[in-house]
Amino acid sequence: MKLGRLNHVGVATPDVDAAAAVYAELYGATERTETKDFPHLGVRVVFVTLPNMQIELIEPLGEASPIHKYLEKNPKGGQHHMCFEVEDIVKARDAMIERGATVLGTGEPYIGAHGVPVIFVHPKDTGGVLVELMQDPALYQGEAGQ
Amino acid sequence: MKLGRLNHVGVATPDVDAAAAVYAELYGATERTETKDFPHLGVRVVFVTLPNMQIELIEPLGEASPIHKYLEKNPKGGQHHMCFEVEDIVKARDAMIERGATVLGTGEPYIGAHGVPVIFVHPKDTGGVLVELMQDPALYQGEAGQ
Repeated sequence: MKLGRLNHVGVATPDVDAAAAVYAELYGATERTETKDFPHLGVRVVFVTLPNMQIELIEPLGEASPIHKYLEKNPKGGQHHMCFEVEDIVKARDAMIERGATVLGTGEPYIGAHGVPVIFVHPKDTGGVLVELMQDPALYQGEAGQ
Repeated sequence: MKLGRLNHVGVATPDVDAAAAVYAELYGATERTETKDFPHLGVRVVFVTLPNMQIELIEPLGEASPIHKYLEKNPKGGQHHMCFEVEDIVKARDAMIERGATVLGTGEPYIGAHGVPVIFVHPKDTGGVLVELMQDPALYQGEAGQ
């Protein structure tokens, strides 16, 4: 198990469209995806694309959203997680458990906002940083390939 | 003024060497720089190198370190800033001011841990995210070129 490239930094915000406007108007980072809701994940998402990675802007969607707690502590928003690509998400999950880390949720990889399986590792394992591991999309063959 | 590539994510930690060991042992991210002290910046730094960017691990150095306040709020550490490359740091600074953002410190670019001039933009301007702008090292000609 070895970290690949940083796919994105997740940034929590009360309003993804207002946040995307800041990256566009203040910083000239105008390349962005459409606003998309993921009700089963409890988030509304916009990706701002930079030359070597994306910023994932994340707004809470629904009562059970995992972003509410973060925004309670940080009402203006802030850096929420870092997401790295791995060659094999199942092997990466197994390695995390074997090495004593805590995988959030059921521990089973699930399909994230990029359409590939992901897991999250508890911030206590990485010095307060919430780490997302994401199946490298270039190596993903869909459910049948898992 | 347009953001270029993400150069690094800054991660505050009480101990850069312990943090670097976590990235190596838990995640297999073994490529790192030597530990280096920057007394005039108030930080001790290790860079962990990933395929498309670096993680800048930052430990407070001295009483006046800008990292103390962050660690008071987040004793285990966490994500502290994102640093993006720009083609011309002076023009970028001017654009930030013109667009109503707050540049920290004196407002003058100064040499950061990478040996090129940087500025920091106040988190209030970017939805709670502290943004560092960094002269693209490939386009930097030293003090004489500024």
